[in-house]
Amino acid sequence: MKRSFIREILEHTTNDTISFAGGLPDEKLFPNKKLENSAIRVLQNASTLQYSTSTGLKSLKEKIAQSYCDEGFETDPENIMITSGSQQALDIIARFYSGTSITIESPSYLGAMNVFNLNNIIQEDITLQNDGIELELFEKSLKKTKFCYLIPDFQNPTGYRYSTKKRDEVANIINQYDGVLIEDSPYTNLYFDKKSISISSMVPNNSFHLGSFSKTLAPALRIGWIRANTKLLEPLIAYKEAMDLHTSGLSQHILNDYLFCLDDYSSHIKKLRKSYKKKMQVFCSYLDDILPEFEYEKPKGGMFIYGKLPNIDTKILVQKCLEAGVVFVPGEEFYKHTNIKDEIRFNFTSVTAKQMEIGLILILQTIKGL
Amino acid sequence: MKRSFIREILEHTTNDTISFAGGLPDEKLFPNKKLENSAIRVLQNASTLQYSTSTGLKSLKEKIAQSYCDEGFETDPENIMITSGSQQALDIIARFYSGTSITIESPSYLGAMNVFNLNNIIQEDITLQNDGIELELFEKSLKKTKFCYLIPDFQNPTGYRYSTKKRDEVANIINQYDGVLIEDSPYTNLYFDKKSISISSMVPNNSFHLGSFSKTLAPALRIGWIRANTKLLEPLIAYKEAMDLHTSGLSQHILNDYLFCLDDYSSHIKKLRKSYKKKMQVFCSYLDDILPEFEYEKPKGGMFIYGKLPNIDTKILVQKCLEAGVVFVPGEEFYKHTNIKDEIRFNFTSVTAKQMEIGLILILQTIKGL
Repeated sequence: MKRSFIREILEHTTNDTISFAGGLPDEKLFPNKKLENSAIRVLQNASTLQYSTSTGLKSLKEKIAQSYCDEGFETDPENIMITSGSQQALDIIARFYSGTSITIESPSYLGAMNVFNLNNIIQEDITLQNDGIELELFEKSLKKTKFCYLIPDFQNPTGYRYSTKKRDEVANIINQYDGVLIEDSPYTNLYFDKKSISISSMVPNNSFHLGSFSKTLAPALRIGWIRANTKLLEPLIAYKEAMDLHTSGLSQHILNDYLFCLDDYSSHIKKLRKSYKKKMQVFCSYLDDILPEFEYEKPKGGMFIYGKLPNIDTKILVQKCLEAGVVFVPGEEFYKHTNIKDEIRFNFTSVTAKQMEIGLILILQTIKGL
Repeated sequence: MKRSFIREILEHTTNDTISFAGGLPDEKLFPNKKLENSAIRVLQNASTLQYSTSTGLKSLKEKIAQSYCDEGFETDPENIMITSGSQQALDIIARFYSGTSITIESPSYLGAMNVFNLNNIIQEDITLQNDGIELELFEKSLKKTKFCYLIPDFQNPTGYRYSTKKRDEVANIINQYDGVLIEDSPYTNLYFDKKSISISSMVPNNSFHLGSFSKTLAPALRIGWIRANTKLLEPLIAYKEAMDLHTSGLSQHILNDYLFCLDDYSSHIKKLRKSYKKKMQVFCSYLDDILPEFEYEKPKGGMFIYGKLPNIDTKILVQKCLEAGVVFVPGEEFYKHTNIKDEIRFNFTSVTAKQMEIGLILILQTIKGL
C-alpha cells in the first residue's frame, strides 16, 4: 500500500520548512484555554477515564444531532456515530461496502482513495468542475456503481464548492438510481460568505454525511462522525467496535464539555472564518505578485488554493523545493488517472503572511533554477 | 458481522446492574488528578492540538522503547507504533495478513476473533491448558499457518499464565517454522507475584508484541502500541495512516507528560496490583461461600476468574441474571467451536466487595429459579 505524500512529508520536514502541504488548521487559533478548562472539569469524574460505548458519548451525539436539526435536517442521536476522525468514518463505511465500485471526483481526497483501495473498492473518477462534478458522466457512472463519494464544500484538493443547482441535480440522480452517497464535509463550516445546503439533506435515507472537529476545533482530538439513517448506520457498529472499541473517551468528554457553551464554539468558528478569509486574500495577493503565472480561482471557503503552473512538472519541482525549505502538494497526487503534471495544492491556513511571502519566493527561485 | 456480547451488554445494562462482564479497570484507582495536571501542562502548547505523525509521538515511543530495554529486550523507538488501543493494533496487523490462517488459543479474546473474521483470517483454535497452549497441536497447526495469536499473561478469558517452560517451547516452535507471533499483553503488568518474560523477547524478529495503557492506566485514553522489528512494522504504517491518520494527539500528549515521572506510574501499577490481588481474594472467598459448585483456579494476575458451573447452560442463565440485575460473560462466547455450555468469565476488578456479594447471591437465586 502506498503512503500519503502529505503524511510522509509531515514526517520528513523540519521545523524550519515552510509548509503549504498539509491541511493544517492555524495553531494560533486553537482554543487551548477553553479546552484546558473543559479537561479540568471532566477529569473531576473518574468515569471520564473508563471504557465507553462504541457509537460514542450519548450527550455528544445529542449535540451533533441537534446541530443538524437546527438547520432543518431532522436527525436523532441514533443517527450519529462518533468516529476517530472522519478518516475512520470513511474506513468504516468502505469496509462495509468492500469489493464494490464507487464514483468519485477527479481530483479527490487522497486519504479517501487510499481507504477505497484498502477495501478493494473500484473507483470511477469523474471530472470535477468548478461548480461540482460533471453531471452527464456522473449519472452514467452512478447508474452502474450506485455509490458515490463527494466533497461538495471547498473540496480537497480544489477548494471548489458545488452550486445549488448541481446539488439538486446530484440529489435527483442519486434518488433516481437509489444510490448511496458519502458526503465528506470537514470544511463546510469554513465558508467565507454563506453556508450551502448539504446534498445529504436532500437524500436523507441514502446518505452518509461525514463531519469532523479536526478543521473547526482541533485535529488532535481525532473526533469526527457519521450521520446516516439507522438502517445504514446500524450494520456499521460491529465494524467500529472491532476496529478500536470506541473513540478516545477523554477527547469526547472534553469536546462534549466544551460544546455545552455553544456560543463559544460558534464565535470560535466565526473567528476562524474571518481569519482564514483574510489569509486566503493575503496568499492570493502574494501569488499574484510573486508567481503571476500560477492560474487559479479564489476559494469561497476551506483551506486550499488550487491551480496550475503551466508546463512545470510540479512533482519534480516539489523535490527541489523541499531542499530549499518549502513544500506543497503536487496536484498529480490527487488523481487516480491523469497526465496532468502542472497542478499544485497550496494550504494557506497554517502559515503566516511572512511565511507565505518567503515560501512563494523560494518556489519562484527554485523554478528559475530548474 | 456479529457484535461483541460484552460491548452489547455495556450498552444495555443500567447503572444499577452489577457487572462482572466487561474487562473494566477499577474507576476508583484512576489517577485523575495526575492526568488533570498533565492535561493542564500540555495544553499550554498550541501544538498539542495539531495533527501529528502516524506512528505516534516520538517522545512517547522513546519511553515505551526504554521500558523494553529496561527489561533486557532491546528496542528502539522505530520499533514502536502507537495505536488507538491494542484493539486497533490487532486490526492493523490482521489487515496486513488478511486472507491467511492463524493459530489461536481456545478459548480466546473475542475482540481478536472478531478482527480476524473481519479480515478473512481463518482461525485454527488449539486448546489452552492452565500452563499454556497444548504444544503438540500447536506445533502441528503452526507448521501450516506460520502465524499465531497468543495471550500468555493472565489470558482473556481464562486468566491462565504460560509457564516458563511452555514459553520456551512455544518460542522454539515459532523459530523452527519461521512463524510470526502476535503476543497480546494488556494484563502483563497486573501480576500478583512476579513478572514473566515475554515470548516475543525470545523471537524478537518474528513477533508483534502488543501493549496497552487501557488496563494499567485509563481505557479512555485509547492508547496501545505494537512492538516489532522494523521489517515487520514498516509495512503497517500505511495501514495505520489510512485507518485514522493517527491516534488522539491529546491522549498521547497527556500520557507522555504523565510518564515523565516514571515513579508515579510504577507506584500506580503497584497500587493496582495490590488492590486487584485483594479483590480477587475477596471474590474467590464469596464464590466459595455462595457458589461452592463453581469450579475454578485462582488467577495469578489480570482481571478475570474463569471456571464452570457444572451442567448449567450459562447463556440461558445470563439472560435471566440480566433481568435480576447482574451480568457476566458465558464462556461459550470465547470459543470458536465448542459444546461447552457451563463456563463463565467473571471480572473482579470493577466491582466492590458488596457488589460481589450481592451479585453472586443474585446469580445463586437465579440458578435456583431456573
